[in-house]
Amino acid sequence: MSAAPVPPIAAHQLLVFLLQVGVLLLLAIALGRLAARCGLPAIVGELSAGVLLGPSLFGWLAPGAAAWLLPSDPGQMHLLDAVGQIAVLLLVGLTGIEMDLPMIRRRGGTALRVSLAGLLVPLALGIGLGFPLAGLLGIGPADRRLFALFLGVAMCVSAVPVIAKTLMDMNLIHRDVGQLTLAAGMIDDTFGWLMLSVVSAMTVGGLSAGVFTHAVGGLLLVVLIALLVRRPVVHRALRLSGGSEERTVAMAAAMILLAAAGTQALGLEAVFGAYLCGLLIGSSGEFDRAGTASLRMVVLAVLAPVFFATAGLRIDLRALTEPTVLGAALIVLGVAVLGKFAGAYIGARLSRLSRWEALALGAGMNARGVIEVIVAMVGLRLGILDTRTYTIIVLVAVVTSVMAPPLLRLAMKRVDCTEEEERRLAAWGGAPARRSPERADP
Amino acid sequence: MSAAPVPPIAAHQLLVFLLQVGVLLLLAIALGRLAARCGLPAIVGELSAGVLLGPSLFGWLAPGAAAWLLPSDPGQMHLLDAVGQIAVLLLVGLTGIEMDLPMIRRRGGTALRVSLAGLLVPLALGIGLGFPLAGLLGIGPADRRLFALFLGVAMCVSAVPVIAKTLMDMNLIHRDVGQLTLAAGMIDDTFGWLMLSVVSAMTVGGLSAGVFTHAVGGLLLVVLIALLVRRPVVHRALRLSGGSEERTVAMAAAMILLAAAGTQALGLEAVFGAYLCGLLIGSSGEFDRAGTASLRMVVLAVLAPVFFATAGLRIDLRALTEPTVLGAALIVLGVAVLGKFAGAYIGARLSRLSRWEALALGAGMNARGVIEVIVAMVGLRLGILDTRTYTIIVLVAVVTSVMAPPLLRLAMKRVDCTEEEERRLAAWGGAPARRSPERADP
Repeated sequence: MSAAPVPPIAAHQLLVFLLQVGVLLLLAIALGRLAARCGLPAIVGELSAGVLLGPSLFGWLAPGAAAWLLPSDPGQMHLLDAVGQIAVLLLVGLTGIEMDLPMIRRRGGTALRVSLAGLLVPLALGIGLGFPLAGLLGIGPADRRLFALFLGVAMCVSAVPVIAKTLMDMNLIHRDVGQLTLAAGMIDDTFGWLMLSVVSAMTVGGLSAGVFTHAVGGLLLVVLIALLVRRPVVHRALRLSGGSEERTVAMAAAMILLAAAGTQALGLEAVFGAYLCGLLIGSSGEFDRAGTASLRMVVLAVLAPVFFATAGLRIDLRALTEPTVLGAALIVLGVAVLGKFAGAYIGARLSRLSRWEALALGAGMNARGVIEVIVAMVGLRLGILDTRTYTIIVLVAVVTSVMAPPLLRLAMKRVDCTEEEERRLAAWGGAPARRSPERADP
Repeated sequence: MSAAPVPPIAAHQLLVFLLQVGVLLLLAIALGRLAARCGLPAIVGELSAGVLLGPSLFGWLAPGAAAWLLPSDPGQMHLLDAVGQIAVLLLVGLTGIEMDLPMIRRRGGTALRVSLAGLLVPLALGIGLGFPLAGLLGIGPADRRLFALFLGVAMCVSAVPVIAKTLMDMNLIHRDVGQLTLAAGMIDDTFGWLMLSVVSAMTVGGLSAGVFTHAVGGLLLVVLIALLVRRPVVHRALRLSGGSEERTVAMAAAMILLAAAGTQALGLEAVFGAYLCGLLIGSSGEFDRAGTASLRMVVLAVLAPVFFATAGLRIDLRALTEPTVLGAALIVLGVAVLGKFAGAYIGARLSRLSRWEALALGAGMNARGVIEVIVAMVGLRLGILDTRTYTIIVLVAVVTSVMAPPLLRLAMKRVDCTEEEERRLAAWGGAPARRSPERADP
């Protein structure tokens, strides 16, 4: 706003932007509903909305119309991306708000062992796979190490929202295995955002020990700041806005966006700040969960579908017609599933759980859904992924999420209900305790 | 998405965008709260957030920092504007949803007379004032007629949200005068969006009888389409999404944005489509008002403050240090107040209301708040207004809104409560019937 005022958005640009948001949202609602009816996670339908409008179908059948609605003009497409960014940051912030820290503490050691093994095995496998895969896909030698690192991170995340929804649908959320899966998934999430931040910093700063130290130092600094501002800033802000839902919603949104800007400014990832801020808000005694119910509803109903549809736009299924890419996709998928199962299994067996319980944990934590899509979008934004590798990673997210329910059902058949579990189930009326909208937790 | 994928938003651009939204929102919350504590409408505080960050203060005290946070790069500022556009369209759509058509029908003739007189007198005065004012401010002869027309439209709008809030606060909403004011204000709103669309079309197409006919024809076409799609599309969409709040919210948002895109495509204003779509949704038997409660909350708590803060950014109070501009502002303010009071008074007296009732109606309808700010932003976007005239019109919006409560109180002292009114008040428990968040209706 310095000297000359900025010209406003031109009429045509505004028209295209509104059409993009409206059409993507409408299609995402319709396909999300269809997916839910077929017993699939809503995110599968929402991604499909973008896939249909993207180069895979609409851009291929009607290139002229597609170029009009989704031109390759950054000034135009960034308007849509800006809405998507707000959406994803609020979504991740809400994930943080809804973390159940006391539950994680209760499940303590076992959850940590399952989580760490479930992180480290796929991380190692992912990094190990990354180098030959980069060669196979013709990624330049300079970028291979970064790609391998990123693939490792992408392999090891778990999607708490999809897991929670699946567990609730299957009435497993109050069983020991269900709670362990959730707790381990939540720890996974936290580490996932941490590692993504480090990779992000190394993309910008270069792959050196110095940058790594710097990034880890930055993360520690951020966590320290978070602990320091927790009481004087977050608690006070929430107390000041307490009592009025309107103020609580606005304050939570403002804090999440500012925290995201903070980590972004430090060269870490914006999502990490949003997540951490959500944790601080959710664990504050001043915070009333009902206060953000409407924010949650609008983010889940309107913003998340728009984000996932825009994420779908970047997918090009035609890439899979290339045998190398299809082969790479199958290998990545296989390694991702194997790594997560093996890791969770090892962690569970080390904690003296039964074989079937260990397999059930693996089946649950294997679902990567929402989180992996967000990670893939970050990879695309950082330039680590191209359309082919992005398509592969989103596919892994979708397939692992779709796999979870049948595998869980299979494993849980062999796990007997303990007495304590039966008491807990009876206390919750044997039915899902939480209200279960179509997507459940973000 | 044609050949080459669009590069994503750059890291620095994302950072600045997140900071802009976060800082504007936080400041808007704080100042909105301060305004409410001082008995002023929240919008005054929210606009002030933008004014403080804009060229009037922050840009003047710290030009370097201001140019960093709010650079004059369209690619950057349009991201913020895109969020503001979504905000304003959903806000106007909700205004449409909350129109109380049965109440307007009950108040029929009187409301229409008050509304029309309250529209026509300021419209005529505004157009009449526009020509000499354009000369005074050095607006080129080619643009004078358009400016005069626009000033007329800007003069004649009323702000239902501010009015409703004021009436509720003063416990007048169930009195005859209160209901009449609301009904007339709602009719005003509808005409305001219609006229704004015509002016908008003439800005693009030129000031000719042909363009005028074309624009009016377009409006009739849109209304016809709206009536035609009402049952097969809107009702069906709402029925399909009925029962699930998540789907109702998403569907309402998608329809509002698509309708806005529709009128924008016809060269009319996007806000008109959003408003009309809101009317269709709100008047549908399939629609459950509770279904959009969370959308309303998030729009009022988060999106509207961001929009009004961005509207405030465009204000430059330094323009008022020029004696001509200050003089023009005072003249416009005087004519706006006089015109609305005179119009409403004439309409009320023609309907055999008492003198004090007529004055109370004028005092209520004089508040222009939210709506006039939206109109001014459209004028800026169309290039009809510059920073000076924009600042003047937003000032009129603010001052008339602040004037409403004391003037209403003064006039209502002389209006006795009828027996029927007393029964109605008793039925509502003498207290505001509707839950009253800080801003009340959008």
